[in-house]
Amino acid sequence: MPIKLYDLAGAEANRRFSPYCWRVRMALAHKQLEVETIPWYFTEKEAIAFSGQGKVPVIVDGERSVCDSWAIANYLDATYPNRPALFECSQARALALFVKHWDERVVTPIMFPLLALDVFHHLREKDQPYIKQTWEARSGKPLEDLSREQEDRLGQFRTSMTPLREALSSQSFLAGVQPNFADHIVFGRLQWARCISSLKLLEVDDPVYVWRERMLNLYDGLGSKAVGYPV
Amino acid sequence: MPIKLYDLAGAEANRRFSPYCWRVRMALAHKQLEVETIPWYFTEKEAIAFSGQGKVPVIVDGERSVCDSWAIANYLDATYPNRPALFECSQARALALFVKHWDERVVTPIMFPLLALDVFHHLREKDQPYIKQTWEARSGKPLEDLSREQEDRLGQFRTSMTPLREALSSQSFLAGVQPNFADHIVFGRLQWARCISSLKLLEVDDPVYVWRERMLNLYDGLGSKAVGYPV
Repeated sequence: MPIKLYDLAGAEANRRFSPYCWRVRMALAHKQLEVETIPWYFTEKEAIAFSGQGKVPVIVDGERSVCDSWAIANYLDATYPNRPALFECSQARALALFVKHWDERVVTPIMFPLLALDVFHHLREKDQPYIKQTWEARSGKPLEDLSREQEDRLGQFRTSMTPLREALSSQSFLAGVQPNFADHIVFGRLQWARCISSLKLLEVDDPVYVWRERMLNLYDGLGSKAVGYPV
Repeated sequence: MPIKLYDLAGAEANRRFSPYCWRVRMALAHKQLEVETIPWYFTEKEAIAFSGQGKVPVIVDGERSVCDSWAIANYLDATYPNRPALFECSQARALALFVKHWDERVVTPIMFPLLALDVFHHLREKDQPYIKQTWEARSGKPLEDLSREQEDRLGQFRTSMTPLREALSSQSFLAGVQPNFADHIVFGRLQWARCISSLKLLEVDDPVYVWRERMLNLYDGLGSKAVGYPV
């Protein structure tokens, strides 16, 4: 029986753009586990109330449900030790946690204003008021204002990629010769943009772009086949 | 026969402040290898000419010499596989490389202006003109100007620690329950400041401070015994 994944969807139900759900899609493919995704929308709190919280990703594996992408990755490695590991050793897991926080605390705040309006426009109409209200309360400004100074932001984003870019100058993946969950974390963030926005985030000669191509082609092209904007 | 380490020194020969040499001091202690340090000064290029370049750290292990802290760490793990590993697996090494570039490309440019004058004042008089010239050529401004806006810089530095701080909220070391070379890399950067400057870099209730205390106490207090400013 495939693992079920509640996966954030846009107005088109097959537009799946959550960076956190992408982490899990990649992790499941990495571990060669079958998945059945269930489109989920921001306002459908009751659909995942069984998980004890109101956010995706949530997976259901037989009798068990697990939420939070980091917890899911650890659950998958613990539950399926004979499948390819998301973390080769405990130090790799600990260091991937650093990458996770770098992604969420450094990269995300730079990317969010670049993508916020695009995300908004791709939502179902019935989900838009909730998201507008939530994001405006969080940022303290109108959604439209978030997208100003796009050019500066884009430069900041590309600068923020420096440690990744440098690491990729001497290895194919963040985790070395093969990807691990740290790669999936950062790829998920870029896939967020690719699935929701026509913004050209990376120059084609950027090692980060080249690495993303590599990631897009993994697992029978899982990432590259996603509904989005192939820029 | 102990491994020899050419170790950057200040006007007081026992003031050792190079972040890159600290990485190696910690790595050698981690691997329980004896070391004999040789004080080295910025202008003594001929003393390490045998290494084929002009910078420390350089180690001499019997007939072999190795330069560059990253290369030295890899040399030590390859040469002394029965000693405690600096990298538990290849993914841990690959992810530590990301930490290295984060340290060098994100953290260092913020810290350098905070510490440049302090470093300068701790050098031998005969080394000062060379360093002044080198740094001013690199930064395009007088050394004295580098230290302006200290307060802003200090705030930026503390913000730059966010991914580390977050990771340390759920584990004792960057590498998990025990430190690996990624810990030594970031510790070396903080030790640079501690050995050369009375600047209070971290608040005592910062998890990064608490982690640094843990690092200072490792290996019989190697870091804590260093000549410096215990702030």
